[in-house]
Amino acid sequence: MFIHRIKTPGLAQNSYVVGSGTVAAVIDPRRDSEIYIDIARQEGVAITGIFETHRNEDLVSGAPDLARRTGAPVHHGAQLDFGYGEPAREGDSFTFGDCRLRVLETPGHTPESLSFVLDDTATDAEAVAVFTGDCLFVQSVGRTDLHPAGPQTAAEQLYASIHDKLLPLGDQALIYPAHGSGSVCGGGLAKRDDSTIGLERRHNPLLACSREDFVAAKCAEHPLHPPYFRLMEQYNKDGAPPLPHLPLPRPVGPTAFAEQMERGMQAVDLRSPEAAAGAVVPGALCIPVSLITAYAGFLLDPARPIGLIGAEVDDGGIAAAIASFSRIGFDQLGYELAGGMRSWETAGRDFTRLPSCHISELLNDETGERLVVDVRPQDEWRSGHLPQAQHVFLGDLPAAADSLPHDRELVTFCGSGHRAIIAASILADAGFDRVTCCLGSMAACKARGCELVKA
Amino acid sequence: MFIHRIKTPGLAQNSYVVGSGTVAAVIDPRRDSEIYIDIARQEGVAITGIFETHRNEDLVSGAPDLARRTGAPVHHGAQLDFGYGEPAREGDSFTFGDCRLRVLETPGHTPESLSFVLDDTATDAEAVAVFTGDCLFVQSVGRTDLHPAGPQTAAEQLYASIHDKLLPLGDQALIYPAHGSGSVCGGGLAKRDDSTIGLERRHNPLLACSREDFVAAKCAEHPLHPPYFRLMEQYNKDGAPPLPHLPLPRPVGPTAFAEQMERGMQAVDLRSPEAAAGAVVPGALCIPVSLITAYAGFLLDPARPIGLIGAEVDDGGIAAAIASFSRIGFDQLGYELAGGMRSWETAGRDFTRLPSCHISELLNDETGERLVVDVRPQDEWRSGHLPQAQHVFLGDLPAAADSLPHDRELVTFCGSGHRAIIAASILADAGFDRVTCCLGSMAACKARGCELVKA
Amino acid sequence: MFIHRIKTPGLAQNSYVVGSGTVAAVIDPRRDSEIYIDIARQEGVAITGIFETHRNEDLVSGAPDLARRTGAPVHHGAQLDFGYGEPAREGDSFTFGDCRLRVLETPGHTPESLSFVLDDTATDAEAVAVFTGDCLFVQSVGRTDLHPAGPQTAAEQLYASIHDKLLPLGDQALIYPAHGSGSVCGGGLAKRDDSTIGLERRHNPLLACSREDFVAAKCAEHPLHPPYFRLMEQYNKDGAPPLPHLPLPRPVGPTAFAEQMERGMQAVDLRSPEAAAGAVVPGALCIPVSLITAYAGFLLDPARPIGLIGAEVDDGGIAAAIASFSRIGFDQLGYELAGGMRSWETAGRDFTRLPSCHISELLNDETGERLVVDVRPQDEWRSGHLPQAQHVFLGDLPAAADSLPHDRELVTFCGSGHRAIIAASILADAGFDRVTCCLGSMAACKARGCELVKA
Amino acid sequence: MFIHRIKTPGLAQNSYVVGSGTVAAVIDPRRDSEIYIDIARQEGVAITGIFETHRNEDLVSGAPDLARRTGAPVHHGAQLDFGYGEPAREGDSFTFGDCRLRVLETPGHTPESLSFVLDDTATDAEAVAVFTGDCLFVQSVGRTDLHPAGPQTAAEQLYASIHDKLLPLGDQALIYPAHGSGSVCGGGLAKRDDSTIGLERRHNPLLACSREDFVAAKCAEHPLHPPYFRLMEQYNKDGAPPLPHLPLPRPVGPTAFAEQMERGMQAVDLRSPEAAAGAVVPGALCIPVSLITAYAGFLLDPARPIGLIGAEVDDGGIAAAIASFSRIGFDQLGYELAGGMRSWETAGRDFTRLPSCHISELLNDETGERLVVDVRPQDEWRSGHLPQAQHVFLGDLPAAADSLPHDRELVTFCGSGHRAIIAASILADAGFDRVTCCLGSMAACKARGCELVKA
Repeated sequence: MFIHRIKTPGLAQNSYVVGSGTVAAVIDPRRDSEIYIDIARQEGVAITGIFETHRNEDLVSGAPDLARRTGAPVHHGAQLDFGYGEPAREGDSFTFGDCRLRVLETPGHTPESLSFVLDDTATDAEAVAVFTGDCLFVQSVGRTDLHPAGPQTAAEQLYASIHDKLLPLGDQALIYPAHGSGSVCGGGLAKRDDSTIGLERRHNPLLACSREDFVAAKCAEHPLHPPYFRLMEQYNKDGAPPLPHLPLPRPVGPTAFAEQMERGMQAVDLRSPEAAAGAVVPGALCIPVSLITAYAGFLLDPARPIGLIGAEVDDGGIAAAIASFSRIGFDQLGYELAGGMRSWETAGRDFTRLPSCHISELLNDETGERLVVDVRPQDEWRSGHLPQAQHVFLGDLPAAADSLPHDRELVTFCGSGHRAIIAASILADAGFDRVTCCLGSMAACKARGCELVKA
Repeated sequence: MFIHRIKTPGLAQNSYVVGSGTVAAVIDPRRDSEIYIDIARQEGVAITGIFETHRNEDLVSGAPDLARRTGAPVHHGAQLDFGYGEPAREGDSFTFGDCRLRVLETPGHTPESLSFVLDDTATDAEAVAVFTGDCLFVQSVGRTDLHPAGPQTAAEQLYASIHDKLLPLGDQALIYPAHGSGSVCGGGLAKRDDSTIGLERRHNPLLACSREDFVAAKCAEHPLHPPYFRLMEQYNKDGAPPLPHLPLPRPVGPTAFAEQMERGMQAVDLRSPEAAAGAVVPGALCIPVSLITAYAGFLLDPARPIGLIGAEVDDGGIAAAIASFSRIGFDQLGYELAGGMRSWETAGRDFTRLPSCHISELLNDETGERLVVDVRPQDEWRSGHLPQAQHVFLGDLPAAADSLPHDRELVTFCGSGHRAIIAASILADAGFDRVTCCLGSMAACKARGCELVKA
Repeated sequence: MFIHRIKTPGLAQNSYVVGSGTVAAVIDPRRDSEIYIDIARQEGVAITGIFETHRNEDLVSGAPDLARRTGAPVHHGAQLDFGYGEPAREGDSFTFGDCRLRVLETPGHTPESLSFVLDDTATDAEAVAVFTGDCLFVQSVGRTDLHPAGPQTAAEQLYASIHDKLLPLGDQALIYPAHGSGSVCGGGLAKRDDSTIGLERRHNPLLACSREDFVAAKCAEHPLHPPYFRLMEQYNKDGAPPLPHLPLPRPVGPTAFAEQMERGMQAVDLRSPEAAAGAVVPGALCIPVSLITAYAGFLLDPARPIGLIGAEVDDGGIAAAIASFSRIGFDQLGYELAGGMRSWETAGRDFTRLPSCHISELLNDETGERLVVDVRPQDEWRSGHLPQAQHVFLGDLPAAADSLPHDRELVTFCGSGHRAIIAASILADAGFDRVTCCLGSMAACKARGCELVKA
Repeated sequence: MFIHRIKTPGLAQNSYVVGSGTVAAVIDPRRDSEIYIDIARQEGVAITGIFETHRNEDLVSGAPDLARRTGAPVHHGAQLDFGYGEPAREGDSFTFGDCRLRVLETPGHTPESLSFVLDDTATDAEAVAVFTGDCLFVQSVGRTDLHPAGPQTAAEQLYASIHDKLLPLGDQALIYPAHGSGSVCGGGLAKRDDSTIGLERRHNPLLACSREDFVAAKCAEHPLHPPYFRLMEQYNKDGAPPLPHLPLPRPVGPTAFAEQMERGMQAVDLRSPEAAAGAVVPGALCIPVSLITAYAGFLLDPARPIGLIGAEVDDGGIAAAIASFSRIGFDQLGYELAGGMRSWETAGRDFTRLPSCHISELLNDETGERLVVDVRPQDEWRSGHLPQAQHVFLGDLPAAADSLPHDRELVTFCGSGHRAIIAASILADAGFDRVTCCLGSMAACKARGCELVKA
């Protein structure tokens, strides 16, 4: 028996290939599904089953495509009327090689959520592991705000699923969740990938709560809900269209790129926050590549074309951006700036700048001239922020920019500076003249031992 | 100004990206055209023109796809009514950056064949180079048997194109042909890639001929003409369908693979000739990957599905085979044997063997029991063969197998052993019990100084 | 906290990088230690500690080199007088970021063996995991035949280490052993990488034994003991020399390669068992790449130069062989055959062949003409073999060949055919004329349901 | 016959592998010589000869190492008493496969400079090509200021070598020079790699000159002469030490990195000029990776350790920097900042900034407050500069900084902004408070059609 975890950056999503002998199953495949075929080739196995723990809302499922490519059936929860695949129910089990996958119905995150218990028939080892989907994470649990029956019901279901279905599997069981640290599908996920039922039972803070406290805690959360979730929900219910083969962004020079911007193309600058201090195409939105899946859904219109701006030296940013956009269903990639930002500069075109500041400059700001705009989500803000800061969540910033003062320097602020540069580019585009991005942000505050306010 | 040569193995085809400043042109793109976009990205240029020297008959042109992806227009000869692109005529010129491409009409290989002269406007250097398509190769010239007006007319046109259009460009001009050594589009191409008009004028054996001798020599040639050429000609006239995204071959185990073979799937074994001596799936056709583009067109039916058998350790064979098949329009790749040939063996299934022999064994065969079947094309056979050998061209072998004796050991023989293993697998499948493949073949004969018969 | 497992093929050795924040530790580094620096670079951490669970005997430790490259101290058991590093003792602990490594003395495999318990100080989760070295494996335990006090004492120590030190850590604790499936350091390791104390407590067959049965079972084992272990033991006690930078094998043609063989170079053919049926350089020893680390130590002399023979198409075999040899301290790589086996053939040189057979041919051998020589280690042989087979362990075959009959066809036989081809090449070189390699071997027997004899 | 050109970025150096059949020669190998072995492996050839056109002064020759690794002899000019290899003289020739290399003595760049004429013995093609070393480049010729007899004598020798030895080879001959565009070994090299004797005879501006004008033009040049050239000259005369295997830079956190800086480590920031506007470690020298080989020799001390600072997302900068430094003999790479610049920011440490400006800001500077400091080499400056600019060559800037005014804003300026950021970091470290880097620089001026002053 072998188990491969495939981590998809940005989305912090985990999919798995579980195999034995000459066959394998894939759990929660992503849209760009070539990787599963490659693993099957390396392992010398055929993919004979595809399992989905739940209808995803934060990414396009690759199950329909992978089913077409492998001929393998797709199995998912019976509580949703999917447009593809077959319903699986509590007690169903699927055996391949030494592996047996047993279905547990574990609603909570969504009504149709399943977990799959993995037994090793070669060693009689029942409950070697459990694929927990968005039910149980390392040090966290799934979000409950997307359930059609409302967060209260969802949280109650989730509590029951964890305590009545998962924990009884025993401390020894490994857990393989659908997300890791950095996902929008849960808060406080540990960076560590590996865990067990026993570790979660003892140390997961939400599992130590009483049922009432658990439900209250879940109902008090404010996870991100980008508008593109609606598209994902439809895609993943009905079966998304195959990954488009053509067109991919075409490299063009500064003049053609600028013309497309005038015609409505959304320019996205993929470079580092530091580089934005040097030069930015006027009107471009800065989104570091790793944040595309989290924030493009808030800030970009999937129906309008997108143009990409990368670094002069290829750091893989364009390719990673293409993959990230396609995983969340943004397929309108029209252009990229050939030669990256430097070609804009050497063409003699004007550019703007999004200057930086460091934490000492904030702390030593005795004039009060600077207004710190903290753009982190509410849960992060509440866990600790600078006393003088004002909170505007990044997803709300385009709409809320009007309420910010024009006569002060606005210092955008987040966890370490990446979301702050997105915010800075939004504010600059909204007409604010004095915008500065705090590189280091909260990480630097903590390293310096700054005094923070909670809640 | 920069010039990149992209060599496509198997087809021995050359395409080129020529650029300057922020723009570039692509000459004779192949079907899997991602590589041109990647080069454009690395060089920081936009692709603004696509040029085809002629309607290809040995591969699927990537011009339509690349035009869709880049928005660049396609230019090709006016003497054929293409279903896409724009006609270019003698004297037309296209300037981008420091590059100027001037059109020469150079018929002969086909009526609409063009060559493109490259000038460097920065140095006033006229005729820096010429893209010669299938007109002039390094140490050879294009084939003339495919011209609709017949080989005589074609050869006369080709002679005039070379002597009246290309040679006058001057000895200094570099030549960039559409094919290199190993192509079926010409005989005797040098392995060396780089050459000049001056080198060809002095040392190309066909350029030293009189007009009459040139025409006679060309009319006496017998280049390969695989059946799939007809499909290519139609594809490249009308514009081929985009490269299919789905499905690619799916890895399956021996049982499923065998079932597909029973239903008509053509199994292709991609491994080395040596490995075929150890084990071959009964009924499989052995075609080393590098020979797919040359011989699949003779031996396989593009309308029936194909199943691939690779090595246990991935040597890139499956991926290379997929690319090779797609470049010649064979898109029906259905399955691959998961785990390669070894999974067939460990499943306990019977296999056949195609044993080898070395050249000493042929030379010391005093009984005359062995019949050497030399499967090389006629031109190679004529240039030197073993006295006791019988000639049957590989492309004709399936039809001609009946004429071979069943009471002797058949030793398949070619240039070095690769085509011989294809032949051996054909004969074994045709019911011959004693088939041996001569590894080393003619290369070994020459190294040993064997006596050879010419013509 | 993050944990990376680095699997070294062939040796089936696991090393680990455990990090948190900006620092990391490496556990049981291998000799080619660049990979740990690369991981540190990707994770943005400094390597500040190196931990060895025990003095390895099957590979060259990379700890001295990595210490030189990183400046990090090496920690290992106090019960051996190492020539480098610092002794660590039960109760010592090392904290970096959120990680705490606590030292357990777990003798048995060797006297100085340590395990390292990993705590996550961020979650107060004691015993998140334990790095078990060669004490506890997934579904197996470490070998006890190398302990200087003898197997009885070793097994008693090992039992105590597992039951008194490891199991009390709790079912929830993940285990990270130093070896996986395929290692010579233990028998019956599961292919699955992930496990927990709880899974092992319930399902590891050796943990269900009483103390007496455990000791008896361990003392009855016959693990492989290649001669090169002695060199490893000395290297890893004193600190091995740095990985040599020069020379690596130089590509040379068949003539030069043959000359070196005459001067004593040991030729090693890295290709597949199937390919050996087609052509083998006379006198070469066939060792598929994946078996170098396991069998080179038995069959080759580290003091004499080695020449490598690969496939015509590079499948990574040469590079993998270089890495494999260097990991076990064979640094005398002199030559490789340029162009692989094919260059030998096209040079017109004679070659030998090691023909194959399949399992049907064995089963249908009514004449009894064939003698099956099963070369698997004793423990595998005892777990099931063909009734008519004769057992000679591969490592003993060079010495035992004389006892085999010359008047029968010898069919070499192993688990799937890889070791059988090594055996076939040994026998052919020893002068046996009729040697055949059973491709599929025991795997094919089991797939076919053949009757087997146990013990 | 095949010819591979290996382009080494930064140095713009070309080396070549020329082969035929089963053997090959390497021309002008660089220090990291693994690439030649890899090419030999792919082509299936043995390297049997190493040829050096001259003793290099801008890079460490790999000839001694490659000779050790391959056993091939090194051939170089007889006019210098090399500490390794064998002298070759006019008229010597070396035949391997179909290749014949004939030696021409072509002094001028150095007294011992050779060119190697390549004949193709298979086609009777004399002078297929010539490896011209630093004698003749595409659109330029070698520098003459390093010759021990002085530039006048050198230029006279060079003129004779070109006109009496190279041009007579005929227009048809391809040229393969030792450098391409961007090298410090000649001015005005074309970006195009391919050329011929005929193209150079007609269009190389220096070949159209009379002997007198040629000599005068060469004597008026001012090529760069970094101090490290002396070390290279000695290394390449005596044979450089092998590439060091240990240590490579070790990743460490901000605190350890800062401590090393205090102890004298030279910190080099490899990121883009744009990123330096966001954040720079105080005291670090900014050198974009592509400029290390050109400017490290001016600005860094090879005897003191170097610490590297890269981007957060690995863009290959660290690996490219290591290769670049080693190619010019800087082997004291001590540390790298783990996690790149971002780890400095999130550690809450203060940073400096090197702000940017664009060309409009320069042109609209009516106050005259800004002083443009143009740091390009003299020849570039003379070919066109802004009227208001002051010229200080980058290599001279550390010494000349004192002469610049502290009461004006200094705007560093070069060809496109890369050298300007080096200059900006030097000036900031020298205590200038208001330093700005003009991104786009002269390229932007030209694109905008700015008025320029020549000479």
